[in-house]
Amino acid sequence: MHNFAFFLFTALSLAAVTAHAGSQNHPRYTKIPVGYLMVLRQGDDVFAEIEKMAVEQKIPSATLAGMGFVNARFGFFNFETKEYEPKEFEGVELASMTGSIAWQDGKPSLHCHGVATGKDFRAYGGHLLGATVSTGSLEITVIVHEKPLKRVTEHPLGANVLQLKD
Amino acid sequence: MHNFAFFLFTALSLAAVTAHAGSQNHPRYTKIPVGYLMVLRQGDDVFAEIEKMAVEQKIPSATLAGMGFVNARFGFFNFETKEYEPKEFEGVELASMTGSIAWQDGKPSLHCHGVATGKDFRAYGGHLLGATVSTGSLEITVIVHEKPLKRVTEHPLGANVLQLKD
Amino acid sequence: MHNFAFFLFTALSLAAVTAHAGSQNHPRYTKIPVGYLMVLRQGDDVFAEIEKMAVEQKIPSATLAGMGFVNARFGFFNFETKEYEPKEFEGVELASMTGSIAWQDGKPSLHCHGVATGKDFRAYGGHLLGATVSTGSLEITVIVHEKPLKRVTEHPLGANVLQLKD
Repeated sequence: MHNFAFFLFTALSLAAVTAHAGSQNHPRYTKIPVGYLMVLRQGDDVFAEIEKMAVEQKIPSATLAGMGFVNARFGFFNFETKEYEPKEFEGVELASMTGSIAWQDGKPSLHCHGVATGKDFRAYGGHLLGATVSTGSLEITVIVHEKPLKRVTEHPLGANVLQLKD
Repeated sequence: MHNFAFFLFTALSLAAVTAHAGSQNHPRYTKIPVGYLMVLRQGDDVFAEIEKMAVEQKIPSATLAGMGFVNARFGFFNFETKEYEPKEFEGVELASMTGSIAWQDGKPSLHCHGVATGKDFRAYGGHLLGATVSTGSLEITVIVHEKPLKRVTEHPLGANVLQLKD
Repeated sequence: MHNFAFFLFTALSLAAVTAHAGSQNHPRYTKIPVGYLMVLRQGDDVFAEIEKMAVEQKIPSATLAGMGFVNARFGFFNFETKEYEPKEFEGVELASMTGSIAWQDGKPSLHCHGVATGKDFRAYGGHLLGATVSTGSLEITVIVHEKPLKRVTEHPLGANVLQLKD
């Protein structure tokens, strides 16, 4: 069992290195008429890459739609503690990702929901706290809006809400 | 128990009032290059707001993509009774909403599907019969088409189908 | 029991014939500002119809978003055998379909994920291997990109990945 665990660890480490090398040879997004098309590969941090693109391309605000194969961390908001209770799902199909890019305190602010499925095809999901691409890829379509939009924490809810006016 | 129930009722009533007041200070949609971006808040009736926008903006037809936090009512169509068998899910993440706006008998006709998840992250969903925004918000991207499209009930199926020609 | 099975078979065959006749009277897609809007009916092979449209309209690449009522075949990729382990879901709501059109070996190459729900509203899904429209319709919005994009099997993963550069 130990041997197998070590083998698995080594294999996964090597796979991660290969994937990173692979990713470096590939552009992560390209321009399309409605905005951008993003393709991420194994090991990529999904939120970090979207935020990087938002900064590089000065995206005022955008809608996101994606699907791929990921390690996902979902969180369900506890309105008493005002914190997300998290759960991780490793090596799952991301059947859908729906979200938006806005700005908060001068930084990109993402709000993404997703649905993930494993080997038994049962679906889980909700609010995405983060994700990395697993053994596959992730395709994201970014529909860019021309208005700079902000997200603001609204009280008493404690919910972070997209603002349509200044 | 009674006291707690009363407290809960009062708290929920106050929350609803607060949310409504909040909503009145906020525009519910704004123009974007592909159509409209809609942000709804606690207490908003999702279908009523989309239909109101469709009428106000004379939207000929459109595709909808959304996500948020809602009370959702799903229905599974029973082809023998030609009726939807409904089920309610309260206080759930709407992991995805996919739908369309068309017209039927001079009124906006919505067809929306959704996926909802609760505290245990398990996903449920299907045909959305209706939804109100719960303790959070709902973001909807509306991709507007220039052609006025109708929905017609096709027989013998009894299914309400989007028509691509007159 | 035998009689009932025969009745069911006859009824389903007749329904299939009716649906096919119905489909022939309807265009399957129409032009919209962002690309195409597709409406499929009972009996239509979803992937075959999308591929046919891609060839007819010379679509360089595109993003797909859909929902409807289908028989769906999902597959979970086994990285040891490099094959998809399939599972069929008959007569289910397709709560969401998210995908893309690219090209591989001169032919359209689809990559679609979906979420399906039945009578009990539980959601299942993942990588779509194929689908036919069941007793209802399927609406698909096709956001067309102007760049011809290819899909290439990347090793050692064995994953078929959308390429953003030649």
